[in-house]
Amino acid sequence: MRLTTYTDYSLRVLIYLTVHDHKSLAKIQDIADAYQISKNHLMKVVYEMGKRGYLENIRGRNGGLKLAVDPETVNIGTVVREMEEDFHLVECFDCQNNGCIITPACRLKGVLKEALDAYLNVLDQYTLSELVTNRNELRTLLQQNV
Amino acid sequence: MRLTTYTDYSLRVLIYLTVHDHKSLAKIQDIADAYQISKNHLMKVVYEMGKRGYLENIRGRNGGLKLAVDPETVNIGTVVREMEEDFHLVECFDCQNNGCIITPACRLKGVLKEALDAYLNVLDQYTLSELVTNRNELRTLLQQNV
Repeated sequence: MRLTTYTDYSLRVLIYLTVHDHKSLAKIQDIADAYQISKNHLMKVVYEMGKRGYLENIRGRNGGLKLAVDPETVNIGTVVREMEEDFHLVECFDCQNNGCIITPACRLKGVLKEALDAYLNVLDQYTLSELVTNRNELRTLLQQNV
Repeated sequence: MRLTTYTDYSLRVLIYLTVHDHKSLAKIQDIADAYQISKNHLMKVVYEMGKRGYLENIRGRNGGLKLAVDPETVNIGTVVREMEEDFHLVECFDCQNNGCIITPACRLKGVLKEALDAYLNVLDQYTLSELVTNRNELRTLLQQNV
């Protein structure tokens, strides 16, 4: 059971932009270098996060990325729900492609749904700002590869 | 976020064998037909479940599968932990392949671990027998494709 790399990277981008020193805008290349991850993959993530209003992508020579939201208002459960492609724990969670014959009587789906809700409820209790209270320490680590 | 098909099928096999009428042993082909799923894939699942003591695979002309455990003692959380390949929600859960630079200071991992624990704790509250209290209804559905 894994989250997609897409969701993983979204959370990393949010952490990066929150601890960034704000003297200049962040570049996608800097984020890719800091985490040693694919810039191409990151561009898709950043585009989607821009569409969803988490960040602003300012064009031009001095352009770059900045957070478009207050980290105190960014709920981790909401980010994961928005960025994760699906939560189809087992086949019957995917109504359109479900072929499991016992679905009408199966109690497993309800149990798994209850477990998924418990998972998301924990994430709902945290904001982005709570993840970066040690921002100096995070910033130092992020500058190691730049 | 999904469980593997492997875990999905393991749970289906357990449900099938629990509601099976016990007049004869169950055949892998029957389970594949009932759920309309790949027999090859199912053979690997059944082999692993045999190794783990969930079922017995009796050879010979009248051979087949039967549950080797009391459904009241089969904990769903344990089954999912045993059959799911991993729970590497994000890269840093995989110690051997983790390259995320902020790991030493990152608080996200703790939050995701807390969410995963909440998920598994829900599954730990259910046994196989609680999933099949409506066994006649399940049996009828499973006989539709046979």
